[in-house]
Amino acid sequence: MIVGEAVPARVSRMLDEIASIGADPPGVSRLAYTPDERRAHDLVATWLREIDLEVSVDAVGNTIASRAGREPGLPVLAFGSHLDSVPHGGRFDGIVGVVGMVEALRLLHEAGVTTSHPLRAVAFAAEEGARFGEPCIGSKLIVGSLSESDLHRLRDPAGQTLASAMTSVGLVPEDAWNARWEEGDIAAFLELHVEQGGVLEATGRPIGLVDVVSGSTRLRITLTGRANHSGVTPMRGRADALMGAAEVTSQAEALALSATNRGLRLTIGRFDVWPNSTTTIPGRVTFTVDVRDTDSDRQRAVALEVAELAGSTGTRRGLGVEADIIADTSPIVLATWVRDRIRAVSDSMETPNRSMTSGASHDAQVMSSIAPAAIVFVPSRGGVSHVPEEWSSAGDIARGIDLLIRSIVDLDTFIAQVRGPATGASSDKTEPGRKRVSPTLEGTER
Amino acid sequence: MIVGEAVPARVSRMLDEIASIGADPPGVSRLAYTPDERRAHDLVATWLREIDLEVSVDAVGNTIASRAGREPGLPVLAFGSHLDSVPHGGRFDGIVGVVGMVEALRLLHEAGVTTSHPLRAVAFAAEEGARFGEPCIGSKLIVGSLSESDLHRLRDPAGQTLASAMTSVGLVPEDAWNARWEEGDIAAFLELHVEQGGVLEATGRPIGLVDVVSGSTRLRITLTGRANHSGVTPMRGRADALMGAAEVTSQAEALALSATNRGLRLTIGRFDVWPNSTTTIPGRVTFTVDVRDTDSDRQRAVALEVAELAGSTGTRRGLGVEADIIADTSPIVLATWVRDRIRAVSDSMETPNRSMTSGASHDAQVMSSIAPAAIVFVPSRGGVSHVPEEWSSAGDIARGIDLLIRSIVDLDTFIAQVRGPATGASSDKTEPGRKRVSPTLEGTER
Repeated sequence: MIVGEAVPARVSRMLDEIASIGADPPGVSRLAYTPDERRAHDLVATWLREIDLEVSVDAVGNTIASRAGREPGLPVLAFGSHLDSVPHGGRFDGIVGVVGMVEALRLLHEAGVTTSHPLRAVAFAAEEGARFGEPCIGSKLIVGSLSESDLHRLRDPAGQTLASAMTSVGLVPEDAWNARWEEGDIAAFLELHVEQGGVLEATGRPIGLVDVVSGSTRLRITLTGRANHSGVTPMRGRADALMGAAEVTSQAEALALSATNRGLRLTIGRFDVWPNSTTTIPGRVTFTVDVRDTDSDRQRAVALEVAELAGSTGTRRGLGVEADIIADTSPIVLATWVRDRIRAVSDSMETPNRSMTSGASHDAQVMSSIAPAAIVFVPSRGGVSHVPEEWSSAGDIARGIDLLIRSIVDLDTFIAQVRGPATGASSDKTEPGRKRVSPTLEGTER
Repeated sequence: MIVGEAVPARVSRMLDEIASIGADPPGVSRLAYTPDERRAHDLVATWLREIDLEVSVDAVGNTIASRAGREPGLPVLAFGSHLDSVPHGGRFDGIVGVVGMVEALRLLHEAGVTTSHPLRAVAFAAEEGARFGEPCIGSKLIVGSLSESDLHRLRDPAGQTLASAMTSVGLVPEDAWNARWEEGDIAAFLELHVEQGGVLEATGRPIGLVDVVSGSTRLRITLTGRANHSGVTPMRGRADALMGAAEVTSQAEALALSATNRGLRLTIGRFDVWPNSTTTIPGRVTFTVDVRDTDSDRQRAVALEVAELAGSTGTRRGLGVEADIIADTSPIVLATWVRDRIRAVSDSMETPNRSMTSGASHDAQVMSSIAPAAIVFVPSRGGVSHVPEEWSSAGDIARGIDLLIRSIVDLDTFIAQVRGPATGASSDKTEPGRKRVSPTLEGTER
C-alpha cells in the first residue's frame, strides 16, 4: 500500500465537495449544528459506505465508521477530525483530518490490509466554539466532559440553546449520555490537522508533532448603560456602554501584552453593540474574551483579571456589568510515546518533522482524557486560519495522510507487541469500561 | 376655535395608530425610505383628506397638504415634522409634530377659519440620519442642500444607495429637483417637536422655544487589519482592527470630555466588527462618529481631530484607515422675530415657556435656509429619546398644538400687517420664486 499520485487529486476533489456545502464566498460558513454541517456529515458517510464500512451517527451528531480488526476483544485505534467551520472561515481547518481519515480507510481497503485492532474513524460534530462559545462539543460529549445540562445552558448569539439547535437538525440531545466512549475502549487516538500557524512554513518542515495543546478560557461580558439621543444628551450625563467596553478592551490588550504574560493570547473576537445606530448612545455592549495559554494558572488568572477590570471600569462609569465564563478548557500535554512512534515513522519516510505546541484547540486534546492521543500538523500557507485565505497544498496534505496511515499500521503492531498475546473479549467481561491498553503504557503524561 | 378636551384623546389615538406601523416592541423601527415609513405617510394623507385637504406626495416622499388662503398670491405659512424613526426608537420623535399638524388643520377646518396666507402642511421623509448617515433628507431636498448626485453617493449599512431605497418604495429620485421649494414661497415655517432632553421637565416649563440648533458632523471610519485564528496568532504579530478601534474610541471620548470642548457632544453609535466571531481576531471595524455643537468651528475641528487620531493610531498599529465625512450640517440661529411672536402668544395663554438650544437636528433647521423658522418643544419625560422609553404626555402635546394653532393665526395676521396690502399675484409674475415676505422682515438672523 502506497500513497500514490492519485491521492492529491482525490484530496482536492473531496475538499472542493465539502467546501461547496455552506459556501460563503470567498470563505465558508458551516457552523456547528446547522443543516450545512449535517450535509457535510452525510457526504462523508456516503464516501465511507462506498468502501464497505459500517457508518453510524451518534445522538449528538458525531459520524462514526467502524472497521473490524483481526483479533477479537482488542480496544480500537481511533482517528478523525471535524467538519464544521467558523463564520467566514476557510476550507481546511478540520476538513483535512476528515478527508485524511476517509483516504486512509480507502487505501487500507484497496490494499486489503486488516489491522489487529479494530479501527474507528470519527468526524466530530461542533468542534468550533464560534457558535456556542464552547469548543469541541462533539468530542466533549464522547468523553463525558460536557453533560446534558450543559446542552441547555450553552446558547448561541441568537439565544438558541445547544439542545434546541441539535434537535432542529434531527439529533437527540436527551440521549447524549449514549454517545459516551469508555476509557478502556481506545488504544490510541490520532488527529491530522492543518497547523493554522506559520512555524512549519517558516522552518521548511512538512510535519509538526504536537506536544502541548493550549487551553482556552472564554468570557462573555455585558456592559449595560443608558441608550439616549446623541445630540441632546450632555457628555457628562451619559452611561455609554461602548465607551466603557472600549476602555475594558484596551485594558485587556495591555494585560495580554505585559512582559509577565508573554506567550499568552487574548482576543476579543465578538463585539455586539445595541442599538447600533449612528444617532443613539449605545445602551449595551456584549463581547467575548478568549484567553489561551499553555500555562493553565496564567490563563485563568488573566481571564479573572479581565472580568475584574470590567467590573471596576463598568462600576466607575455607572454601567451594569455581567461577566460569565462560557468555556474553560485546560492545556493538555499529549502522550509522549505515541508522538515518539509517529516521529520514528516520519523519520523512516525521510520526512523532516518537529515537535511544537498547538495554540488552537483540537478534538484530540479532548480525546486525550480517555486515550493516549497525538496530533499531526501539515503546513498552513502564510500562517492564517479561520479566514477565507486559509490554505494548505494537496501535496502537503497527501504527505500527512501517508504518515497517518503508516502510523496507524505501526501503532497497531507496537501496541499488540507491548500488550503481549491478546486475552480475548471473555476475560474483560467483568470491567470492560476500565480496561487499559497495557501496564507498560500507563503513567505517561496526557 | 378652542383646543378642547377631545384633543388629548385624539392625539393619543393618532400616536397609537402611527406607532403600530413599524412596531418593534418595546419600541419602533420605522426607518427612512422603508415600506413602513410610506405606510405612515399614507395614513397621515388619509387623515388630511378626511378634512377636505388636497394632499400630494413629492418625488422624494414628502407628503404635502395645501389649504387655500383668503388672499391670492401670498407666500405660504408652512409647518410640519417627520414620520420616520431610528432603529429601536420611540413613538414621539417627529410624530408629535405631524399629529399636531393634522390636529391644527382639523381644528381650523371644524372652526371654519380661513387664514390670509395659504397654509402648507408637510410630513417630511427621512429625517433621521440613522439609516444613511445624513439627517433631514426630505427637507434638504426641498431646500436644495442635497442634490441628485448625493442620492447615489449616500448608502445605508447594507450598501444600498439612497436613490435605490427611494425607488424601491415607489419614489422617483431622478425627479428630486422637482421637490424644490423656492425661497420666496414661504412666509414662515413652524415645527412642533418633543424636546428629547430633560430641561423642560426639570424647570417645570411646558414650552421650549428654540433659539439655536446644534450642527452635526458625521464621520464613518474603517480600520482594516488581518483576521486570523485567536489561538494560533501571537499577540505581537497581530493587526487587530478591534484593538485599534477601541483605542480611537477612547481617544475620541477624551477629546470630547476636555475642558475646551465643554458643551460639545461626541457619540460613536454604530460599531460593526468583522467577522465578529469569538475565535477570530477582528479583521475590520467600521464605526460612525457624530459630533454636535452650537459652535460650527469647534464641531468641525473636533471631527477632523478624530479622523487624524484614527489615522495616526491606525498607522502605528499597522491598520488600514479610511475616514469619510458622511454628513455635515451647520449649527443654525433661528429667526428671532418668529420666536418673539410665538413667545407673546404663549404668554397670552399664560403658558410658562423658555428659550433653549436644540441638541438634536430638525427639519425646521433646514427649512430656515429658505424661510424664517421656529421650533416649539413640548416636554420629554426623563430626558430620553431615540429609545423605546421616549415619552411625552398627551396633555403636554395638546398644549403644544394649542400654541401651534394660535401662532399660525397670529403670524398670519402679523405678516400681513408688516407687509401692507397684498399686491396680488399679478405683480409677482416676473419673479415669483424670489419674492420675499417683507422688507421689514429681511436681515433677521436665520
